[in-house]
Amino acid sequence: MDLLAKALPDGRVLTDPDVTDSYSRDRTFLTPGAALGVVLAQSRDDVIETMRWATAHRVPVVPRGAGTGLAGGATASEGCVVLSVAKMAQIKELSPADEIAVVEPGVITADLDAAAREHGLMYAPDPSSYEISTVGGNLATNAGGLRCVKYGVTRDSALGLEVVLADGQVLNTGRRTVKGVTGYDLTGLFVGSEGTLGVITSATVRLRRAPLVPPATIAAEFTSLRDAASAVSAIIAAGCQPSLLELLDRATLKAIDDWRNIGLEAGVAAMLIAQSDATDGQTAARRMHDLCMENGASFVAVSDSPAETEELIGIRRMAYSAKERLGNCLVEDVCVPRSALPDMMTAIEAAAAKHDVLICTVAHAGDGNLHPVFVFDHGVPEPPQNVWDAADEVFRTALDLGGTLTGEHGVGLLKRRWLELETGPLASGINAGIKKVFDPLGILNPGKAI
Amino acid sequence: MDLLAKALPDGRVLTDPDVTDSYSRDRTFLTPGAALGVVLAQSRDDVIETMRWATAHRVPVVPRGAGTGLAGGATASEGCVVLSVAKMAQIKELSPADEIAVVEPGVITADLDAAAREHGLMYAPDPSSYEISTVGGNLATNAGGLRCVKYGVTRDSALGLEVVLADGQVLNTGRRTVKGVTGYDLTGLFVGSEGTLGVITSATVRLRRAPLVPPATIAAEFTSLRDAASAVSAIIAAGCQPSLLELLDRATLKAIDDWRNIGLEAGVAAMLIAQSDATDGQTAARRMHDLCMENGASFVAVSDSPAETEELIGIRRMAYSAKERLGNCLVEDVCVPRSALPDMMTAIEAAAAKHDVLICTVAHAGDGNLHPVFVFDHGVPEPPQNVWDAADEVFRTALDLGGTLTGEHGVGLLKRRWLELETGPLASGINAGIKKVFDPLGILNPGKAI
Ligand SMILES: Cc1cc2nc3c(=O)[nH]c(=O)nc-3n(C[C@H](O)[C@H](O)[C@H](O)COP(=O)(O)OP(=O)(O)OC[C@H]3O[C@@H](n4cnc5c(N)ncnc54)[C@H](O)[C@@H]3O)c2cc1C
Ligand SMILES: Cc1cc2nc3c(=O)[nH]c(=O)nc-3n(C[C@H](O)[C@H](O)[C@H](O)COP(=O)(O)OP(=O)(O)OC[C@H]3O[C@@H](n4cnc5c(N)ncnc54)[C@H](O)[C@@H]3O)c2cc1C
Repeated sequence: MDLLAKALPDGRVLTDPDVTDSYSRDRTFLTPGAALGVVLAQSRDDVIETMRWATAHRVPVVPRGAGTGLAGGATASEGCVVLSVAKMAQIKELSPADEIAVVEPGVITADLDAAAREHGLMYAPDPSSYEISTVGGNLATNAGGLRCVKYGVTRDSALGLEVVLADGQVLNTGRRTVKGVTGYDLTGLFVGSEGTLGVITSATVRLRRAPLVPPATIAAEFTSLRDAASAVSAIIAAGCQPSLLELLDRATLKAIDDWRNIGLEAGVAAMLIAQSDATDGQTAARRMHDLCMENGASFVAVSDSPAETEELIGIRRMAYSAKERLGNCLVEDVCVPRSALPDMMTAIEAAAAKHDVLICTVAHAGDGNLHPVFVFDHGVPEPPQNVWDAADEVFRTALDLGGTLTGEHGVGLLKRRWLELETGPLASGINAGIKKVFDPLGILNPGKAI
Repeated sequence: MDLLAKALPDGRVLTDPDVTDSYSRDRTFLTPGAALGVVLAQSRDDVIETMRWATAHRVPVVPRGAGTGLAGGATASEGCVVLSVAKMAQIKELSPADEIAVVEPGVITADLDAAAREHGLMYAPDPSSYEISTVGGNLATNAGGLRCVKYGVTRDSALGLEVVLADGQVLNTGRRTVKGVTGYDLTGLFVGSEGTLGVITSATVRLRRAPLVPPATIAAEFTSLRDAASAVSAIIAAGCQPSLLELLDRATLKAIDDWRNIGLEAGVAAMLIAQSDATDGQTAARRMHDLCMENGASFVAVSDSPAETEELIGIRRMAYSAKERLGNCLVEDVCVPRSALPDMMTAIEAAAAKHDVLICTVAHAGDGNLHPVFVFDHGVPEPPQNVWDAADEVFRTALDLGGTLTGEHGVGLLKRRWLELETGPLASGINAGIKKVFDPLGILNPGKAI
């Protein structure tokens, strides 16, 4: 570490154990290994120096954005250096004409979106953590979000990357154009690779036209989960093109109601919140209202002011905090074909009952992406066995239904045990081979993602 | 070949030189090497057997769809076996509920689209060759098309693939869900890999809601190319979301007019054809009309019937054939950031004048993707030196403008000389390393793409 500290400008290397510890965890419960120290990179050169040093001394490096991950991707491993790029947070270029921005990885997602809005544009990827997570972290996990039912995941906004490889070489992938097919899709390979192939030091991302009008919003209550899921299918099939389509189950609604009293009615089993940001969004909202009613909704609120919209969306925003009040949370992330949504919801309820676990589920329903949150005692640092048993059942059902273990959070450390159930041994071997091309010594975030 | 013929059902292996020759060329002028023979695969098992045999005997294999490629990707190499999957043309599943289809690679793109339309859906990727090219070929080249200004390229519709690897193992990538981040993005890696990493034997693709109304269409004439390019930028900036935005230059219009007499006025330097398939498409079309007028259009036609729309789009459709009448064609495919469109058009005109070459350009203008077509004598089999000199200048200008050598056709054989100018030696090394992971013996389409 001394050599590294000498190679970098003053103040870049931190070794105080308290500081190191705070940079060693993400938002999972996982206990990190003891890191040698933290590098707070402020430039690409800092990253290059760090990787050169790490290669020379065979030291594992754990790249880190804001540490909001839910899969343990940024959890420190024993004897590693944590390489934080959070301070590389400059928006280097924003071109309204080409609808692109070039940013450093530490830019907070919401900040990029806000900068784009000044030009009538937006940065579409919006994980619920968009006010606290980084563009680089979003790229490294291929983050989803609420708007991705209409605008796609982070991959769909990534045009080109600058990446520092394990040995300190700088690779540029992709391009500034919206299309291009020279060579293999290395941009796509880095997106979602969770820091195992290189450190993203700059990204050229696509911006989109911001909606011209405030979104039109509805919230529908259902006494049956299956009815709510049917409404989701009907809304998609009718071509309503919602820009947000979120489902909250009974347990989630109850947690929110207990905390903030939203006047939850007794029989309500699910709430569907939907938005359209189209120019004729009010028409779409009315159509979605009708489809909810036709599919058995007991009540549908249609907002007709931004304040009311905020109130409805606010319910969704409270979901996570409401659960954290109840206990420690294992936040899961299965994704199934949309038609399997009711079966998946049913299976989650069954697993909760069978293993006696409180599971509160929120779903990006339009994408079939569910977040069952397994709640366990505040006093218990790690999920107890019955939680793992229930989670195991949920994962296996998702795969049986033609789904995947993780829609947007990534594999990290947390889901490696199940990974091969989904991808099979052949893909594992190929992933390992690809990893070796980029990182022959295996020093980049070892033990994660693949 | 005898051993292979024995291992496969009767009639799969063809060695008649005339037949072999006809399966050895794509739509480029490139002279193929002599192939040992052609395998007409009818099933995944045929592909597996062929690859096993090829691995055992170290025989190069050139995968082939419909052979409509414009980069020489399917051009036979000396001593290879051409592996055609054109007869694997079954739509195995079409799920309206999940908006996906599972198809064999030889399905003609337009056939999949037509099947989807029966359910109110569409298959978005629509290269101009959509009536003659295959879904597998489109995936292998990451084909673009007219609609991709709104719906993205083929990658954006690919969810999962079944691929037979060089040694005959079967790899499944991706998933049936719209989102997912388990392992590296192998689906993205195969898309655009031009048959160098494996043979696609099945694809799970995303369908989209078909537009609810017929598209609204305009065609605008400009006396200045720069004005036309400004109109393009204005249309995008105004959020009109065209579903098609095509630019035809003077030389192209003249070629069409000479052939079919479209009543081209003397001073016209460019035509812009734009379409909106939105529900309020007529509003968007009127807005696009106004923006063209504001940016100096001399005349704008707005269609108000499907017949008139066909007429306007028909002009675009005639472009390629009109040029083929004039001579042999080297069809190029540069792509630049949209704001660089006028500079790129100007540079193409300058290159044409300097090297005394007829270049007719059509552009997917909304994407900054230009197809300058270099026309040379019908009697000459290969592009003469002045054509290559002009092309070289066009390629270098595209790169200088922050663009790419190929927006959608691929590198194939044709553009390998220039590839490293764009990607640099580090990416070349990485591409070679990735290739080795999938195809250690280098038997899959050697000498292509990377
Ligand atoms: C309340 C809450 C809500 C959330 N909602 C969502 C949601 O809706 N959708 C969603 O997808 N996720 C969500 N998440 C998870 C998390 O915010 C995302 O995974 C996010 O993308 C992580 O970004 P980060 O900057 O915090 O990255 P970190 O947690 O620091 O790192 C995540 C991974 O990326 C790697 N990494 C980070 N930066 C780089 C870089 N520059 N180069 C290479 N690798 C790098 C790390 O090594 C690690 O593997 C949520 C989290 C919380 C706490
Ligand atoms: C008139 C005309 C218009 C065109 N317009 C467009 C356009 O608008 N946009 C566009 O992008 N292209 C266009 N093209 C080019 C061409 O049609 C596309 O590249 C198309 O995707 C090729 O499909 P194919 O089935 O003919 O593939 P082929 O030409 O047979 O093969 C193309 C490449 O893909 C590989 N390949 C094919 N099938 C497989 C498979 N199953 N597994 C692995 N590798 C495979 C081949 O090895 C080769 O490298 C046009 C061509 C013509 C002649």
